[in-house]
Amino acid sequence: MTEETTVTSEDLKRYFTKDLFARYVGIELIDARDGWAKARLTIEGHHLNGVRRVHGGAIFTLADLVFAAAANSRGRVAVAINGSIQFIRAPKGPVLYAEASEESRNHTLASYSVKITDESGELISLFQGMAYRKGESVDYFENV
Amino acid sequence: MTEETTVTSEDLKRYFTKDLFARYVGIELIDARDGWAKARLTIEGHHLNGVRRVHGGAIFTLADLVFAAAANSRGRVAVAINGSIQFIRAPKGPVLYAEASEESRNHTLASYSVKITDESGELISLFQGMAYRKGESVDYFENV
Amino acid sequence: MTEETTVTSEDLKRYFTKDLFARYVGIELIDARDGWAKARLTIEGHHLNGVRRVHGGAIFTLADLVFAAAANSRGRVAVAINGSIQFIRAPKGPVLYAEASEESRNHTLASYSVKITDESGELISLFQGMAYRKGESVDYFENV
Amino acid sequence: MTEETTVTSEDLKRYFTKDLFARYVGIELIDARDGWAKARLTIEGHHLNGVRRVHGGAIFTLADLVFAAAANSRGRVAVAINGSIQFIRAPKGPVLYAEASEESRNHTLASYSVKITDESGELISLFQGMAYRKGESVDYFENV
Repeated sequence: MTEETTVTSEDLKRYFTKDLFARYVGIELIDARDGWAKARLTIEGHHLNGVRRVHGGAIFTLADLVFAAAANSRGRVAVAINGSIQFIRAPKGPVLYAEASEESRNHTLASYSVKITDESGELISLFQGMAYRKGESVDYFENV
Repeated sequence: MTEETTVTSEDLKRYFTKDLFARYVGIELIDARDGWAKARLTIEGHHLNGVRRVHGGAIFTLADLVFAAAANSRGRVAVAINGSIQFIRAPKGPVLYAEASEESRNHTLASYSVKITDESGELISLFQGMAYRKGESVDYFENV
Repeated sequence: MTEETTVTSEDLKRYFTKDLFARYVGIELIDARDGWAKARLTIEGHHLNGVRRVHGGAIFTLADLVFAAAANSRGRVAVAINGSIQFIRAPKGPVLYAEASEESRNHTLASYSVKITDESGELISLFQGMAYRKGESVDYFENV
Repeated sequence: MTEETTVTSEDLKRYFTKDLFARYVGIELIDARDGWAKARLTIEGHHLNGVRRVHGGAIFTLADLVFAAAANSRGRVAVAINGSIQFIRAPKGPVLYAEASEESRNHTLASYSVKITDESGELISLFQGMAYRKGESVDYFENV
């Protein structure tokens, strides 16, 4: 598969059903294509920390999933090498959305920004990540 | 409870049993006191991502827990405001350890460094976080 | 001066002439108002590092200036508490632009994103910073 | 030059005299070898920002220099791809020190931590950076 291959949103969504941790946490990849991705997490009791707020780890995992989906939409396997997150406010309501955008991409490295918002569209968290692009192709059609 | 209050390791460990997401992920707080904390995560199938590596979200959650435990060991409620993580290598073996150290602390802000290592002591991930210290005291003896 | 005070672009630009390091580095604040700012740096020999690329410190300083201008446009003194930067590509041509946008702002903390681009509009660097908002007001009319 | 080549502290210090921006800012590389480096900056008027504190850009540049010196001490050209900095407190006295330590290094990426302290040894700033290691060797003996 070359970089020029068109990966459909359906291929990417099916491919990411193999992300077992994202599934375990309860994250749903809504859509992904061409360096962009969107996902949702409905907050339940087990997503909270000791002071009854959404756990930073759950928010990061949500950001990380859309980052990974966007980074792996280009045909080459991309692995996260770093991420920086700001925790801005507590969400109103139980649903969080994350949306990743590709900021840049060259042969070996690519950068993504992620915004996490609540149902009212208020910014909850801001994430910035960098991925290392490996030589191998993503096998979107691998048995899942 | 004042900043001078001695919080025992047992108080902190009991207090963090209320961290439902850390429990859900399977993280065990081994010890925590005086701006320092250590925890363990035994990697299972549901901690993996789509390319069968430990999910960045699981590693971040482990880092976040020791960061929170260290930051909340000083008597005042501290909430994470940002974190930066580097993903360095894949662990050898199923056990990850995270250890947080307090780098600084003033009236309103405190900084922590976290190292995540595998069983052989190799560095897996490096985390740096900042917490905002609220006016209220941590109620370590609150019903859990 | 209250948060509601309207600070003009001229007030902010005059105020930032007091930023001696930005001046020393050769950064020009083009415009700033309402949580937003734009600046320019024309790269000269003394901005280069040992491998003849623009020094990361010069790029960070450019990002930091627009971050500071945007953060101090709201009437209250804001100081940077952290920043995360990605160095994406070498610029084509000698001119760099930085543009800061306010992502969030509450009573004590505010977040800003900065994009650094070259003359052709290509992204050179991506910055994300958080500022702590102090109790005191910015004295935009202080003797400069 | 192979990775096994021993680079002396003198070679590295001479090599970094080519870092024109670090020189312009007034940073002195005290020592560097084997993934480690130390530098000093004596704060003068032109290092200050608009509120008469040391400029974040000057502190970042100091951190960046020791990061670069440590990263380029291994025989291969290493370029910074990201950095995260926490601004912790204002220094007491005019002298800042920065010390970089190598946290990890593989074929393509390497991680460094930097602590910036003042004369009394108090922590002023904390930095964490990642470098991309290029194929080419550092020419420590290039005409400077």
